[in-house]
Amino acid sequence: MHVLVLGGAGMVGRKFIERLARDKQLGGKPVDKVTAQDIFPASPPANAPFAFETLTSDLSQPGEAEKLIASRPELIVHLAAVVSGEAEADFDKGYRINLDGTRYLFEAIRHAGDGYKPRVVFTSSVAVFGAPFHDKIEDEFFTTPLTSYGTQKAIGELLLCDYSRRGFFDGVGIRLPTICVRPGTPNKAASGFFSNIIREPLNGQEAVLPVSDQVRHWHASPRSAVGFLVHAATMDTAAIGPRRALTMPGYSCTVAEQIETLRKVAGENVVKRIRREIDPVIDKIVAGWPRNFNAQRATALGFKAEANFEEIIRVHIEDELGGKFVA
Amino acid sequence: MHVLVLGGAGMVGRKFIERLARDKQLGGKPVDKVTAQDIFPASPPANAPFAFETLTSDLSQPGEAEKLIASRPELIVHLAAVVSGEAEADFDKGYRINLDGTRYLFEAIRHAGDGYKPRVVFTSSVAVFGAPFHDKIEDEFFTTPLTSYGTQKAIGELLLCDYSRRGFFDGVGIRLPTICVRPGTPNKAASGFFSNIIREPLNGQEAVLPVSDQVRHWHASPRSAVGFLVHAATMDTAAIGPRRALTMPGYSCTVAEQIETLRKVAGENVVKRIRREIDPVIDKIVAGWPRNFNAQRATALGFKAEANFEEIIRVHIEDELGGKFVA
Repeated sequence: MHVLVLGGAGMVGRKFIERLARDKQLGGKPVDKVTAQDIFPASPPANAPFAFETLTSDLSQPGEAEKLIASRPELIVHLAAVVSGEAEADFDKGYRINLDGTRYLFEAIRHAGDGYKPRVVFTSSVAVFGAPFHDKIEDEFFTTPLTSYGTQKAIGELLLCDYSRRGFFDGVGIRLPTICVRPGTPNKAASGFFSNIIREPLNGQEAVLPVSDQVRHWHASPRSAVGFLVHAATMDTAAIGPRRALTMPGYSCTVAEQIETLRKVAGENVVKRIRREIDPVIDKIVAGWPRNFNAQRATALGFKAEANFEEIIRVHIEDELGGKFVA
Repeated sequence: MHVLVLGGAGMVGRKFIERLARDKQLGGKPVDKVTAQDIFPASPPANAPFAFETLTSDLSQPGEAEKLIASRPELIVHLAAVVSGEAEADFDKGYRINLDGTRYLFEAIRHAGDGYKPRVVFTSSVAVFGAPFHDKIEDEFFTTPLTSYGTQKAIGELLLCDYSRRGFFDGVGIRLPTICVRPGTPNKAASGFFSNIIREPLNGQEAVLPVSDQVRHWHASPRSAVGFLVHAATMDTAAIGPRRALTMPGYSCTVAEQIETLRKVAGENVVKRIRREIDPVIDKIVAGWPRNFNAQRATALGFKAEANFEEIIRVHIEDELGGKFVA
């Protein structure tokens, strides 16, 4: 099968393609070609057993989506998006990429006109929810985003459901938890510290905790995120029905529990590398974020995440640090 | 003040403009001009105390929205839409009018660039909900439309909230119940019978009831619909917060209760003009519709509807039949 990954040069896209290279198949079908589209070139995965192609293009330019689906990939994983902060800072860009780009893709598929009906996996976000929340957000809770990014994702979900209902493609929308531990270097995302306080200390570096350790949040590992994509790509969608946007499972814990778990896994010396320094701006942003979910539907449909924060740390040490850390 | 009504030639638009002509003011401000835009010309209301202008245009054509707001109306009531059946039959037309048209309007306001920040009242629909429902749908229930029309309205609500949150305009979204008793002649809308079985018998005509009399539905009179618009146009939006799409109050009853109330108000002879003849197609469509709501937020914010079906019938007799009916 031919797999098209939009946003294929990003962290999750890259890890998904690496997993395809290891698994060599998807849902029992051999993967013979992977196309990674992004605004910058994607590197090929190591030991790819399939033809790998990288395309640089801007999905929000009319005509680009048609080119991307010209070879009729059986699976399209749509990860391409302007992130939350940028969509808030640049209103036009956010709507152009996150809304128009998605709509161009869906329209290109609808207009293929040759019976083409791919599986489309659309990555959404818990940013579709806006405070005030219930302590544990249920599957039937309404989406009232408080960012333009969340609005664009909620609209993408609605379009995904309508285009699937009308039979234009077979869509699955997955709302990702905050991905923790995010590999790489600290970035300016307001949510960055959830990963920084684990990743940097394990790497012998200091990390700043800018909020109270009583802040509670919803996490899943990069490995789980890739697992969600694989499951969404291969599951029987007859079981989903018309409500195709699913809150993914995850693990809810406080920052204090993250730190306690780091102490248990890596010791006091590592934990000492966390410096507490409240940043009122980040503190305020984080206060508006969801803390916990009851992801019943996704769990019943076979999506799986870590059951505790220790697993999340161990996945990071295994997948990113070759099993070792700086004690 | 200058009021722009998009879809001003339709039933609700016409009645809203007639009410402005009677009240002469809105929220204490004298109305000095009303512009009714639609795809066909709107008639002027009787005894209009304001300048009345009718414009025929297609809001979904680029550039039309800019023309409509060129004179900077303080209030825009957006009723223009392709209805449910048509949006389902013609996918492109539904998205063009209901989604693109709405977005063109919002974008035109955003780009005005002279501090223009009108009140925008957007009429949405209970079609944003899709079965299965709770028996009584709460304000926090999620929107999972099962029609393209409902999808387009749900997207319009999301855009309304985001543009309002960003300060581009001051929006209020109102989800109308089924309007009953709808004046005029029977039409092909699947929901038409809820009105037909009251209006036609009161007019000495036979009406067909195509579903079981155990069907329960959610109603408000045309007079209430106009009241919702007036309240949405004049209320203090500080009290709404960022969740600007509100399910309007209404009255939930079975068709059996509608008929019993007609008997009480108009007598057995009138009720005898209802012929029961199940239409399996309509029966199936109606089974997917919401039956009852708990419109707590809208009620707390001052929106009012009828408290029983007798009021709904009496409003029809007063407003449409000059107080008389064919006994």
